[in-house]
Amino acid sequence: MNSQAFKHSAAHVLAAALVKLYPEIKLATGPATQNGYYYDFELPKSITPHDLGKIQKQMRKIISQNLPIKKERISIDRAKKIFKKLNQTYKLELIDDLIKKEGKKPVTIYKIGGMIDLCKGPHLKSTKELNARGIQLTKLSGAYWKADEKNKMLQRIYGLAFSSKEKMEKFIQTAEQAKQRDHRKIGKELDLFITSDLVGKGLPLLTPKGAAIRQELEKFIIEEEFKRDYQRTFTPDLARTELYKKSGHWQHYRESMYPAVKIENESYVLRPMTCPHQFMIYNSRPRSYRELPIRYAELAKLYRREQSGELSGLIRVMSFTLADAHIICRPDQVEKEFQDVVELVQFCMKTLGIKDFWYRFSKWNPKNKKKYVDKPEEWEKTQKFMKKILANLKLKYVETRDEAAFYGPKLDVQVKNANGKEDTAVTIQIDFDLPEKFDMTYIDENGEKQRPMIIHRSSIGCIERTMAFLIEHYAGAFPVWLSPVQAVILPVSEKFNSYGRKIKSRLKKNNFRIEIDDSNQSLGKKIRQAQAQKIPYMLIVGQKEKDAGSVAIRKRDGGDQGVKKLSSFIETLKEEIQQKK
Amino acid sequence: MNSQAFKHSAAHVLAAALVKLYPEIKLATGPATQNGYYYDFELPKSITPHDLGKIQKQMRKIISQNLPIKKERISIDRAKKIFKKLNQTYKLELIDDLIKKEGKKPVTIYKIGGMIDLCKGPHLKSTKELNARGIQLTKLSGAYWKADEKNKMLQRIYGLAFSSKEKMEKFIQTAEQAKQRDHRKIGKELDLFITSDLVGKGLPLLTPKGAAIRQELEKFIIEEEFKRDYQRTFTPDLARTELYKKSGHWQHYRESMYPAVKIENESYVLRPMTCPHQFMIYNSRPRSYRELPIRYAELAKLYRREQSGELSGLIRVMSFTLADAHIICRPDQVEKEFQDVVELVQFCMKTLGIKDFWYRFSKWNPKNKKKYVDKPEEWEKTQKFMKKILANLKLKYVETRDEAAFYGPKLDVQVKNANGKEDTAVTIQIDFDLPEKFDMTYIDENGEKQRPMIIHRSSIGCIERTMAFLIEHYAGAFPVWLSPVQAVILPVSEKFNSYGRKIKSRLKKNNFRIEIDDSNQSLGKKIRQAQAQKIPYMLIVGQKEKDAGSVAIRKRDGGDQGVKKLSSFIETLKEEIQQKK
Repeated sequence: MNSQAFKHSAAHVLAAALVKLYPEIKLATGPATQNGYYYDFELPKSITPHDLGKIQKQMRKIISQNLPIKKERISIDRAKKIFKKLNQTYKLELIDDLIKKEGKKPVTIYKIGGMIDLCKGPHLKSTKELNARGIQLTKLSGAYWKADEKNKMLQRIYGLAFSSKEKMEKFIQTAEQAKQRDHRKIGKELDLFITSDLVGKGLPLLTPKGAAIRQELEKFIIEEEFKRDYQRTFTPDLARTELYKKSGHWQHYRESMYPAVKIENESYVLRPMTCPHQFMIYNSRPRSYRELPIRYAELAKLYRREQSGELSGLIRVMSFTLADAHIICRPDQVEKEFQDVVELVQFCMKTLGIKDFWYRFSKWNPKNKKKYVDKPEEWEKTQKFMKKILANLKLKYVETRDEAAFYGPKLDVQVKNANGKEDTAVTIQIDFDLPEKFDMTYIDENGEKQRPMIIHRSSIGCIERTMAFLIEHYAGAFPVWLSPVQAVILPVSEKFNSYGRKIKSRLKKNNFRIEIDDSNQSLGKKIRQAQAQKIPYMLIVGQKEKDAGSVAIRKRDGGDQGVKKLSSFIETLKEEIQQKK
Repeated sequence: MNSQAFKHSAAHVLAAALVKLYPEIKLATGPATQNGYYYDFELPKSITPHDLGKIQKQMRKIISQNLPIKKERISIDRAKKIFKKLNQTYKLELIDDLIKKEGKKPVTIYKIGGMIDLCKGPHLKSTKELNARGIQLTKLSGAYWKADEKNKMLQRIYGLAFSSKEKMEKFIQTAEQAKQRDHRKIGKELDLFITSDLVGKGLPLLTPKGAAIRQELEKFIIEEEFKRDYQRTFTPDLARTELYKKSGHWQHYRESMYPAVKIENESYVLRPMTCPHQFMIYNSRPRSYRELPIRYAELAKLYRREQSGELSGLIRVMSFTLADAHIICRPDQVEKEFQDVVELVQFCMKTLGIKDFWYRFSKWNPKNKKKYVDKPEEWEKTQKFMKKILANLKLKYVETRDEAAFYGPKLDVQVKNANGKEDTAVTIQIDFDLPEKFDMTYIDENGEKQRPMIIHRSSIGCIERTMAFLIEHYAGAFPVWLSPVQAVILPVSEKFNSYGRKIKSRLKKNNFRIEIDDSNQSLGKKIRQAQAQKIPYMLIVGQKEKDAGSVAIRKRDGGDQGVKKLSSFIETLKEEIQQKK
C-alpha cells in the first residue's frame, strides 16, 4: 500500500498543511523517497522542530476532511499564470526549466483545498485514502535549492505515510533495528575499524579486531581456491597508463579511475581492475591447450573513484581488496568453469551464513556507446550463451540492462544491507573482448593458435564490503571462526589471574584469539563487558577450576555450559572453528 | 692488490696500447670500476671484438717492457697546449670543464711511452708492477660521451687487472657464478616472476610459483608475530597529503614520495611508510599504561621513488611490501622491546638460512638539515641510548653517519647480493619525534598523561627484496617449505598417469604444492626437467609402486631415497616443512 501515489499524496497533504498554516510559504519540491517523502520550502521565519507537531495535526485534519485530490492537465502558459499569481517563484523556475528542456508541453497540477502544486503524479483520488494515524513527520533539516550549495538554503521536512498505525510502527521499529545493525555503529562499538579525517574520507583503517576478521576471510578463500586448483598471483597495484589504453579501461572506465601521475616522463595510474595484470602473466610464455583452464586468483587491491558524498564506512571506499580471479580456458571449457564458479559462490555464501541473496543477469545497453565495446554481434552471442548456461543451471534470476562490464555480460549476486540498500556482492563475467585486445592465444592439439575465453569472477567479493555486510548480518555476534576474540578468560578475582594467564597462553598455542580480563572489576561487570563485546565464549576461573585444571564456560547469549577440562574445551573450539559454525 | 692505483694504471696501459695501434685515436675517459676499468675513445673506423686480442697482446708487451708511469704536475694552460698539439679534443673539453668549475688550477698528467693522459691518479710507478698474465679485456660496447644521448656515441673497452693469473681466474669464476645466481636470471628460468614493459619498469609481477614463495614468507612472519603478541592492522596505501605534512614526511622525505593526485579538491599521496597510519589507530581512543606495549604489525605496501635507471628485478622496485611493525611502549619498556626485536630478526635470519649478515648502527648527520628533524639534543640522547642497548646486547656492529631515519637512529641488518652489492635487509629504529608530532599519549598509574616511545621495525624486511636475496642465496634450490613445487610425480609411462593423479590429489589434500608430469616424454627427460626446475622431491611411480601404494623417491640433487609408502612420505614432508629445514 505504500505506493508512489500514496507517498506523493502524503507529501501534498504536507504541502497543503503548510500552506494553511503559513500562507506566505514558497513551496519548492516534495518527492517520494524509498520509505517516505519530504518537502522543501522557504519561509520568512524558519520553523523549528517544535512546530512539527502542529503541522502534523493539520495534516491529520486535512486527511479526515476527506478532501478530493484534484488533477488538472493544463497548458504550461496557464500554469505559469497560476503560479505567478500565487507568487510561487520556485514553481515558476521549475516551469521555465521544463520549457527549456522539452518546449511548451502541457503539464499536470494537483489541488488539495487551497494548495496547488505542479506534479507528474500519480496520486490518490482523495485524502481519505490516506490514514490520519499512519502519518508521521520525522525530521527537519536544511537543503540547498536544486542541491546546489551556490543556491539558497531551504528548509526540509521528512515524513512517513502508512496505511495503518501498526504498519508505521513496525517500519519505525525495523528502521531502528537497522540503525542498530549499521556496520558503522557496530564497527565503532566493537572497535573493528576507524576512520580518520587526516587519512581521508573513504579510507577506513582496520584495527586489530577488524584485521582478525579480514585475515579469516582471506585465509578461507585462499584455502578454498587452493583446493579448487586456482593459482595465486601478486601483481602491482599500479601500471603505466598505456596498459589501460590497451585494455580499453581508459576509453570505457576512465571516470572511475584515479588521475594518472607522471614520473620521469612516464604516466602511471592506480589500477581499477586486475585483469590486464594477470593477462601479462598468461602472455609471458606460450601456452598449450593442455595447460588450460588456468585459474589465476589474487587478493587484489583496486582503486575506483566514488563521489566523496557517497563514501561511507566499509561499503563505499576509495580503495578496496577484491577476492579476484580470471579463468582462461578453451571455449569448450567455459560452461563447466562457469558452473564451478557459481557452485563456489554458493559455497561461499553458505559458509558466510548469507541466505538472503538473489541473482541478476546484467546485460549491456547498445545505446550507451561510451560504456561498452562496440561489438553488437559479440554482445548478442555472448549474452545468449550466458543465458543458456543459466538455464542449464536452472538458476532463477532477474534481468537488467546497462549493468554489464564494458567487455561482456555479468551474473551478479545481489544483497541488501541493513538500511535496505541493494548492492552487488559478487560478480561473474564472460569476456569476449580482452582476449582479442591482448592477443591471448594457446596452441591446440593440431599446433594451431587459438583464442581462449575468459571468465572474470569474484567469490567472496570485496573484502571490505563483505565485512560490512557480515557485521550487519550478525549484528557483531560473529560465528567463532570469524570472531576477533574467540574467548575471554575471566578470573573471579585477582588471585586467579596467574592461572588465567596460563590458560591464555595454552589457548594461544592452539592459535585461538584469546583475551584475559585481569582487571579488578567484579565478575558481573566483566561478564557484561564481554557480552557487550559479543565474545562467543567466556571462561570463568576460580579456585575450583584452578584445582581441577578446568574452566567454567559461558556463552555470549547467556548460556551456561558448565565446567570443562581445558583440553576438552580446546577440542570443542577447534571443531567449531574448523566447521565454521 | 687490486687497488685504485692498480686499476688506473691498467686503464692507462690500455690507452697506451690503443695509441700505439691506432695513432689517430681520440681518448675520452678511462676510470676504474668496482672490479676493473674501462676506456672510452673515438676512432674513424670502429674496432671489432676480433681486435681485442691484438690490443691485449700490445698491453702485455707494454707491461713487460717495464715502462715508467711518469707523473707531472703542470699548469692547466700548459696541459691545454699539450693536448691541442696531440689533437685530443675530448681532453681539451675536459680541461675547459675544469676551468669552468675550479678556475685555472694546476693539473696532473701521466705518460706511458708516447701516451699522455690527464688524470688525478693515483698510479703505480712502472708498468712492471702490473702482471702481464693478470690482464684481460672482457667486453666492447658503445657509450655516449659524458653519458648523454645527445652526444656522440664512442666505443668502450672493459678490462680486468689482477696481480696474478690465478687471482683473475678466480675472480672470473666467481663473477660467472654470481651471474648464474642472479635472481633475475633464476627468476626467469624457474618462472618466479616476470616484468612487462606495458605494466612498467620496477613493477614486477609474481607468477604462481613466485607467489607461492611469497605466501610462505608472509605466513611465516604472520604466525611468528602472532606468537610474539603482535596485533595486525590493515591500513590504506594512500592518504591525504596532510597526513604526511603532519608526520614530517612531506618536509624530510618528499623526494622519495610519489607525486600527489588531486581528487575533488583534495590532495592524496601513496604512502612511503606505514607509521602515521598505525598511529591513527593508536590515537583513536585513550590508552592506559596497562595496554602497553602495543605492537602493531602489517604487511604494508609502500611506494618510494627510485631513479628509473636503478630499477632492477625484485630488488629496486617502485612499490614493495614491508613486513612492518611499530611498537608503542613506555620508556621503561624500550630496551626489552628492542632486545626482543633483535632476537626476532636473528630468528628470522636463521629460519631463512641467512648467515652472512652484519649490523650497522646508522646515525644522523647534523649538517644535513633537509634529511633530519632539527633536534640535536634528542638525537644525541637517543643515539647514546641506542648505543647502550647495543652494548648490553654485546652486538658487534659498524657505525655510519647520515643513514638514520629522519625521526631517529637505526640499527640496520646488512647483506650482500650475488653481485656483491650491499643492501639493508632489515632495520630497527627508535623514534623520539613522531610521538610528539602526533601528540600520542597514555595514562599512567597516577592518571597522568605520558608520552610513549616508538620502535619502528621490520623482521624479514621487504618481501620482494628478501625474495630476491633468497633466490640468489639458494640459487633457486629452496628448502622444501619455500619451494614453489614441493614434489613432482613422474609416472614411468602414460599407463600410470591415473595412479599418479590419485597420489597428487592425496598430497594436495595435505596442502602440499604438487605437480604431475603426465606428458609422454621419457622418464629420463622428466627427471632432468624436474631437476632443472629445482623441485626438491621427484616421486616416480610405475607398476610396482601402484601395486604397493608407494612412491619411489628421488631428491633434486640426485639422491635416490628408495621406495616408501605414500603415507610415510607424507609424514616426512610434513615434518620437513614444519621444521623449515
